[in-house]
Amino acid sequence: MNLRKKLIAKPGKRIKLSKIDAAFHGNYADDEQAKDALARNVARLAELQQKLYAEKKHALLIVLQGIDAAGKDGTCWHVMAAMNPLGTYVKSFKQPTEEEQRHDFLWRVHPFAPGLGQMAVFNRSHYEEVLVPRVHDLVPKSVWSSRYDLINSFEEGLTQAGVTLLKFFLYITPEEQLERFRQRLDDPARQWKISEADYTERAHWDAYIDAYEDMLEKCSTPHAPWYVIPSNHKWFRNLAVSTIIEATLDDMKLTLPEPTVNLDEIRRKYHQAKKTGVGKAGSPADR
Amino acid sequence: MNLRKKLIAKPGKRIKLSKIDAAFHGNYADDEQAKDALARNVARLAELQQKLYAEKKHALLIVLQGIDAAGKDGTCWHVMAAMNPLGTYVKSFKQPTEEEQRHDFLWRVHPFAPGLGQMAVFNRSHYEEVLVPRVHDLVPKSVWSSRYDLINSFEEGLTQAGVTLLKFFLYITPEEQLERFRQRLDDPARQWKISEADYTERAHWDAYIDAYEDMLEKCSTPHAPWYVIPSNHKWFRNLAVSTIIEATLDDMKLTLPEPTVNLDEIRRKYHQAKKTGVGKAGSPADR
Repeated sequence: MNLRKKLIAKPGKRIKLSKIDAAFHGNYADDEQAKDALARNVARLAELQQKLYAEKKHALLIVLQGIDAAGKDGTCWHVMAAMNPLGTYVKSFKQPTEEEQRHDFLWRVHPFAPGLGQMAVFNRSHYEEVLVPRVHDLVPKSVWSSRYDLINSFEEGLTQAGVTLLKFFLYITPEEQLERFRQRLDDPARQWKISEADYTERAHWDAYIDAYEDMLEKCSTPHAPWYVIPSNHKWFRNLAVSTIIEATLDDMKLTLPEPTVNLDEIRRKYHQAKKTGVGKAGSPADR
Repeated sequence: MNLRKKLIAKPGKRIKLSKIDAAFHGNYADDEQAKDALARNVARLAELQQKLYAEKKHALLIVLQGIDAAGKDGTCWHVMAAMNPLGTYVKSFKQPTEEEQRHDFLWRVHPFAPGLGQMAVFNRSHYEEVLVPRVHDLVPKSVWSSRYDLINSFEEGLTQAGVTLLKFFLYITPEEQLERFRQRLDDPARQWKISEADYTERAHWDAYIDAYEDMLEKCSTPHAPWYVIPSNHKWFRNLAVSTIIEATLDDMKLTLPEPTVNLDEIRRKYHQAKKTGVGKAGSPADR
């Protein structure tokens, strides 16, 4: 099954999220069956990221959005775990600070756009600004509705500079969310993630779904597509995301750059150094 | 004479720079005659900037472009001299560094966009990227020509966040440039400004003029207009720029914010403090 084709939000097409099966898990019955595929993906990603870093002809920006407990943090962890921190980073976007609010909504995001050779994950992103302020009526409609075009232009600018964008919307059902909240209550390692807003935001579920559907329709573009990831099963979410990243990096035909030096020359120096050792006098020709 | 109306580059209209009189000097015969008007402008700007800073409802971004020796540095100095450095800054953009070149061309510019309450001057700007790389064929036409739309969208985003943009193209004749280069040669205080490129870039004069004309036509928008400032006379350049900035700030109807405290209450505390002094016990009611 080609997960990239299956899960892409086709540019300009409306997706009814209620018609998406959040528990979809492709060809694999369970995480045990998917284990080898997952491990293979992670290993391949590590290898491809090294090439991306060395070659410096491409950049990759992964955007993660999803309702609370959809698995954004877990996806970051899973995807980035295998990578070399040199050349990769995760940037989380929280509620805008006072200073950030005095600037245009892309101001705080732009500095974290990856440069050639870099791979970045945005854990939440500029898309927050067409979600929260809309659902909570924090700015007039004229303001948030103009942001779709501004986002598309911003992302087009990145693309033209060599950035490939992959945007993942992690989709879970309200029932799955509630179950995850329950697990947090019982897990001392994750109790810190519980916030007052968890339950009050659930009251706005339908409004968020509307906002996500608009975001997917207006901002899934050929140069920066959205993917809707069925995320009730964490292992399938990880499999789908890593598969799509891998396929995207594969398309870049990344290659390690040619050495900039004459290897035979360097080999000669190596043997000479070995023969004479540090601090010993070299042959007269080397002095 | 309404200099704003006279000097604006009308959105979408082609300007032939060769038809512009770079030595134009409006209603004043010389700098002696203009002296009072200039001093008045500078004082008004200082006052208005304080209101902008206190009110935090608007931001102002002044963009300066112009060929070498057109007077960008001098204009910065003149315009900003009267302002409070708190809330104002000049950002100069030089040749992009290696790291900047690995990002989209707006990446290095965006972080310096002013926030509400701030006033910024860009000494050169994102417009460099539709000038130098075009004239010197550093990137394909498809790349630089797509930047006009990206710039317009970027600036529209700033505008929507409360930034007013004023873009000044300082226009001098090639003869005036040569004369200024000569003066630099003879002035120890300005010899440091002389660069190898001064004379080699002159060979590309016509190509630069073409590029400037395109920039003015494509990027003078109702929300972020370009002004062509006749700059052979430095004093007229300063007069024109400060007049346009002042008129633009006037339009904002800036007002100092209301105090957030009850002044009568604070006055009472002041008198009490004066009566009792520091360290003395206040009245029982104050304890």
